[in-house]
Amino acid sequence: MPEPPELLPNERLDDLNNGLFIIQDPSAFCFGSDAVLLSSFCRVKRGGRVADLGAGNGIIALLVAAHTDASRIVGIEIQERAADMARRSAVFNGLSDRVEILNLDLRDAPDTLGRNSFDTVVCNPPYGKAGRSFFRGADARSIARHEILCTLSDCVAAAAALANNGGRVAFVCPGLRIAELFSLFEQHRLSVKRAQTVHPAYGAAPSVLLVEGVKGGKPGLVWLPPLFLKDGAGNMTEECKKAYHMED
Amino acid sequence: MPEPPELLPNERLDDLNNGLFIIQDPSAFCFGSDAVLLSSFCRVKRGGRVADLGAGNGIIALLVAAHTDASRIVGIEIQERAADMARRSAVFNGLSDRVEILNLDLRDAPDTLGRNSFDTVVCNPPYGKAGRSFFRGADARSIARHEILCTLSDCVAAAAALANNGGRVAFVCPGLRIAELFSLFEQHRLSVKRAQTVHPAYGAAPSVLLVEGVKGGKPGLVWLPPLFLKDGAGNMTEECKKAYHMED
Repeated sequence: MPEPPELLPNERLDDLNNGLFIIQDPSAFCFGSDAVLLSSFCRVKRGGRVADLGAGNGIIALLVAAHTDASRIVGIEIQERAADMARRSAVFNGLSDRVEILNLDLRDAPDTLGRNSFDTVVCNPPYGKAGRSFFRGADARSIARHEILCTLSDCVAAAAALANNGGRVAFVCPGLRIAELFSLFEQHRLSVKRAQTVHPAYGAAPSVLLVEGVKGGKPGLVWLPPLFLKDGAGNMTEECKKAYHMED
Repeated sequence: MPEPPELLPNERLDDLNNGLFIIQDPSAFCFGSDAVLLSSFCRVKRGGRVADLGAGNGIIALLVAAHTDASRIVGIEIQERAADMARRSAVFNGLSDRVEILNLDLRDAPDTLGRNSFDTVVCNPPYGKAGRSFFRGADARSIARHEILCTLSDCVAAAAALANNGGRVAFVCPGLRIAELFSLFEQHRLSVKRAQTVHPAYGAAPSVLLVEGVKGGKPGLVWLPPLFLKDGAGNMTEECKKAYHMED
């Protein structure tokens, strides 16, 4: 492990137990399991260009850089402080030659970065419905989780514009909004090709789903086996460990 | 058990092991597990009016009549011979006072039966994509299973037209076409409210999904726990037996 990076107040360096470290701020920017699962679910071709919309503290960008042969991963994050943390984590992990973090509104990303310019676009969107109270003085955590600065529809539109023809767009989304997500994908010519339900425990209802669309792809959705995070005894399942890259 | 009904050539009387019997013709009209699962999944209010689009040999209509407090169940079936079998099965089971089978194109059902006139509409659609070869001399079994006489889109449109405001529309559909189904539901103002994945065996990918929309309902999709048909040892699971009304 290299020298620990300089940390700002409230920050800490967390060990991902797979050879990577990440700078987090428990009061504002910590990743969740959804992001990790999405990084394993998405498919990245050798030498592919990957965009991560709403990169937060960079968890997905780091994992994709470490575990795929992507040539370039561009994380797009509207919150300056999160973008800064992600950038420093990329440097600390020695991944900054392939990981670039842009402090940018994802709605502007297609114009800034070019339409049809990525092979894979991933997004763990802020999927909570924003109440009116959020709009005044929303904090960093609320912005990351609720539709305050962008909606689910904005995220799908940006992802569809960034992906090239035949490119893959992968989202993680709570079950509650899957019908809407599928509709948005179809509206944006993203044919839904792969889906997987994620269950907090064996036999429980799915909490979130992982969904992949292919831009301009033919119809035909393949469902993967359900992903149970815990087994009957409450232990992490093998497939969950695998999704967390814990076998490395 | 009353006297067995008179059967036509190729027909047999099958015991559903839950107090009901059904006339089937193994060469053309036999029900599958999808239909049985749909009959358990759909929700029918006391005294409700239920329509079954593409009733086949009447399996769903019989099960809904036997297991709910629906006041009337109208099965709509374009194939005359299947409709005739369904009608005779309803009589044999003593359910013909509440079950009516109409030999009708489901696309004409809203005009014939009235728009906004049912509390629950169920449909096990012919969801196979029809190849060109089907259009000449399609047999009864192909018509029941493929989009020859109607498409998935026709089925959703008819269901949405028949359901009253706040009425429920329940479909069973292979995983392959779920994105399309969700899009069609949203297009027809059917808010997808409940979904359940059905898995042939424990841990396997889902083969079909059960989906319920509410006409004019608010967004918000609740996922039920996955339904495994067989357990690890290859035996029928308790939840499958329940869906088959085998506890009766």
